[in-house]
Amino acid sequence: MPITANDPALKSWIEVSKDSDFPIQNIPFGVFLTNEDIVTIGTRIGDYAIDLSALQQLGYFNGIDLHEEIFLQDTLNEFISLGKGMWRVVRNRIAEIFDENNTTLKDNEEQRKIVLFHIDEVEMQLPVFIGDYTDFYSSREHATNVGMMFRDPANALLPNWLHIPVGYHGRSSTIVPSGIAVKRPFGQTLPKGETQPVFGESKRVDFELETAFITTDANRMGERIAIENAEDHIFGMVLLNDWSARDIQTWEYVPLGPFLAKNFASSISCWVVTMDALEPFRCESPKQDNPKPFPYLQQEGNHAFDINLQVSITPENGTENVVSNSNLKYMYWTMSQQLAHHAVNGCQINAGDLLGSGTISGPTKDSFGSMLELTWAGQNPIEMNDGSKRTFINDNDTVIMRGYCQNENVRIGFGEVSSKLLPAIPFEK
Amino acid sequence: MPITANDPALKSWIEVSKDSDFPIQNIPFGVFLTNEDIVTIGTRIGDYAIDLSALQQLGYFNGIDLHEEIFLQDTLNEFISLGKGMWRVVRNRIAEIFDENNTTLKDNEEQRKIVLFHIDEVEMQLPVFIGDYTDFYSSREHATNVGMMFRDPANALLPNWLHIPVGYHGRSSTIVPSGIAVKRPFGQTLPKGETQPVFGESKRVDFELETAFITTDANRMGERIAIENAEDHIFGMVLLNDWSARDIQTWEYVPLGPFLAKNFASSISCWVVTMDALEPFRCESPKQDNPKPFPYLQQEGNHAFDINLQVSITPENGTENVVSNSNLKYMYWTMSQQLAHHAVNGCQINAGDLLGSGTISGPTKDSFGSMLELTWAGQNPIEMNDGSKRTFINDNDTVIMRGYCQNENVRIGFGEVSSKLLPAIPFEK
Repeated sequence: MPITANDPALKSWIEVSKDSDFPIQNIPFGVFLTNEDIVTIGTRIGDYAIDLSALQQLGYFNGIDLHEEIFLQDTLNEFISLGKGMWRVVRNRIAEIFDENNTTLKDNEEQRKIVLFHIDEVEMQLPVFIGDYTDFYSSREHATNVGMMFRDPANALLPNWLHIPVGYHGRSSTIVPSGIAVKRPFGQTLPKGETQPVFGESKRVDFELETAFITTDANRMGERIAIENAEDHIFGMVLLNDWSARDIQTWEYVPLGPFLAKNFASSISCWVVTMDALEPFRCESPKQDNPKPFPYLQQEGNHAFDINLQVSITPENGTENVVSNSNLKYMYWTMSQQLAHHAVNGCQINAGDLLGSGTISGPTKDSFGSMLELTWAGQNPIEMNDGSKRTFINDNDTVIMRGYCQNENVRIGFGEVSSKLLPAIPFEK
Repeated sequence: MPITANDPALKSWIEVSKDSDFPIQNIPFGVFLTNEDIVTIGTRIGDYAIDLSALQQLGYFNGIDLHEEIFLQDTLNEFISLGKGMWRVVRNRIAEIFDENNTTLKDNEEQRKIVLFHIDEVEMQLPVFIGDYTDFYSSREHATNVGMMFRDPANALLPNWLHIPVGYHGRSSTIVPSGIAVKRPFGQTLPKGETQPVFGESKRVDFELETAFITTDANRMGERIAIENAEDHIFGMVLLNDWSARDIQTWEYVPLGPFLAKNFASSISCWVVTMDALEPFRCESPKQDNPKPFPYLQQEGNHAFDINLQVSITPENGTENVVSNSNLKYMYWTMSQQLAHHAVNGCQINAGDLLGSGTISGPTKDSFGSMLELTWAGQNPIEMNDGSKRTFINDNDTVIMRGYCQNENVRIGFGEVSSKLLPAIPFEK
């Protein structure tokens, strides 16, 4: 029987610790720079980054209809465009090469040296060229929390929220991979109780705990995407920290939405975990009975995913403080609904587009996905284990988000998205 | 004395009619497909498209430090990245080649055949690859009209409007060049007086009369753009029809701004007119005294541009009906202010980014830049010369926008952005 990457019995000859996010069942895709200054598409098993272009040159993908430089690229976009069938074929072949019963590469030390790099030896890159970035607002708990804080506690959810997977366009040019530091932004804000704005550093820089999915070429302009096959157009997922400057946001966002409050930076994790790898973790999403969504948003079966999510803050020279534990399964609107909605007007979705979930808040106070909610707009500071307190993110804090799925057989994870907030650059004018 | 493209006394050996938008003083840049299926960067004089890659191959750019395929490209992005100095050198050289006193190309019939194409023989393409598209909301008249219709007539302008060049991110994937038809979108809308939305074709498809500017690589993430040199990062301008579905917009836009109401299509004119060509048409912008903008938005001198704008509607099998005459000079916020604001938080601006002005409405009723305003939300239909009436845009109507500058010496224009609205595709589910 041919090997399939998802087989829970599969083991790799690369050692994988029990709590690793990257067993042979994961086989995510990413782009990295090797210590020989070659940029390549790769995958990861355990603590090893695997150079797929080297594997191809050595003939390991022979028999698969791939052009000879498909992995010698600095983005995944072209590979993504090959479609779901090819993603599967390639993942299964990789599983075969690294299967513990296959000694071909395992016993070839010379080839292993060309193909395998310890994860600390490579520099991860942004995995895709992102043409368009959309961010949704699909957690009912988050939308309710925000509505209670800033609008009417009795009518916290806006009238459109249960009908529309509300979303907006974000900025592609400032999406950076894990590890890249971010600077505190300057901007206009309206101090509480004042009528005139002031200009200065944002005093309320926040994270937003999100996941995001990356699409393939799904439709042409003017065409829709049927919800039944929306998932076929999703290549995989990453973790997303949608950095937000709350004070800038409050002043600028009416009537056209967030702009400078968001577009200074968004950070994503570097390994794209495929939907095939996440398949065992499909689960029910919240009931949508009152109201029922329009037919173009209705779907049968399970389309949520049980992904554990965690956020921590590490002060400079300090240790990590977990501030939130959430889960993607809480989201009211699923990824297929988001995608079908996005294209219902004929909006074209391209390979490499990034679609964020919106802040993922769970039902309990320790599962909220932003400092805004965790500290209830700064009213309830969080104490760090060094005794310092946080209402929002301080200069030189590092925010780390992690995500993984776990069942009795296997753990499939995303690694992390980690980024440090640097002080603002002084403004001379 | 060396020839400069802007010299009003300059004449070309290519015949240019008096009302042409493209005298030798314009020298815009675009991308076209020739009748020999070659995609090239080109310029235009009178009714002739000029193949710049052919000119380069023939040696006409010798002595200028350009790599040999800089014009053999399907986007202007790489050329734009060369910066303002090089745009100028290339425009001046083109002026020299086509100057009436220069017989080198003029008298070489064989070369002329390779270089010159009648404008009807070429197919214009999208001139740039647009990484990020931002749309502003910078006409005080437009913001006031919208505020009066939908919010509070007594406080039509929102509190932030006079402090911030309000803007939001749009969709790059659906920006199309003049000539490409657009389909009426489906979407959710809330019928007047109802509490439950309905799903169907938009009944209020509208144009928005805008201009847009295209930037070069202006800064890196985390850096700002000083207003004093913001204009140096602007390559040129195009006309923009920011198609809008008003009924979808009204239901979806709170709190994150317009999304599906806008991202089904935006149409731009194909020739990018450089800021150098527009220099003679610099003029004063509206006073910003009450309130004064923050220092990062303050500028000396004239930064508005006197560009006449016109919108017409042509019903199927009908003739053109001019519905609006406006001018870019009415805009409250200038392009340099928009750009300085966009980057004040460190947002990275890349070559090929498109930044729209927002709807350009003048002070009088016949100068409003959208059907929403011209018909005052549908209350005052406009009669076409075939006797039919319009509140918004009908299926198979063609919307044409034109723009030009004119002084005693010269007329510099954009040509047009023309697009037909096709009926919605029937929805089966």
